[in-house]
Amino acid sequence: MNINVKNSQNVTVVELAGEIDASTAPAMQEKVLPLAQTESKILLDMTKVSYTSSAGLRVLLSLFKEVKKNDGKLVLVGVSEEIQDTMSVTGFADFFVFCDHVDNGIKTLS
Amino acid sequence: MNINVKNSQNVTVVELAGEIDASTAPAMQEKVLPLAQTESKILLDMTKVSYTSSAGLRVLLSLFKEVKKNDGKLVLVGVSEEIQDTMSVTGFADFFVFCDHVDNGIKTLS
Repeated sequence: MNINVKNSQNVTVVELAGEIDASTAPAMQEKVLPLAQTESKILLDMTKVSYTSSAGLRVLLSLFKEVKKNDGKLVLVGVSEEIQDTMSVTGFADFFVFCDHVDNGIKTLS
Repeated sequence: MNINVKNSQNVTVVELAGEIDASTAPAMQEKVLPLAQTESKILLDMTKVSYTSSAGLRVLLSLFKEVKKNDGKLVLVGVSEEIQDTMSVTGFADFFVFCDHVDNGIKTLS
């Protein structure tokens, strides 16, 4: 998987591409978790993520906890319907703010 | 998907086979939920289920609630590792008792 980090209007935009599974999730976690600094505003753009396994869900939850601990904000963009449904059924969705587009995500975080 | 219901040692054994997705979940729910009568002991054998979508998770949660409401017991057998992981990550697993084999499931319910 590819991870690209950039800054836009004081928001850390993390573009993910590829599959998030047990083999790629550790590298993702290692790269993404340190971005959650004090009061960080993080946008995770998953538009180009083709597949998210339970290992990916685990990273999302870890990131959420880290962001919350540091009084930051987190928005997820482009999460697939199936993953959003899974989060919704399990009550997991309550933790996250979902946006359709990066622009809306940045607006939400600003 | 195929659903086969039989009785074994006072346990209602429900064998599921095929894919549980948005198109098959409603039929599954319609057939399985009414089995949750007062103090029913239900074993859901998912060994032959190849795929479970979020719609399947939703049915499992509905069944759990129905069983609980009626003071019954529910055991899941042969749930795939990925689904168990998803349930575990999201805290959803706490609702269920998992067994590897039907025999162990029946023993657990007896």
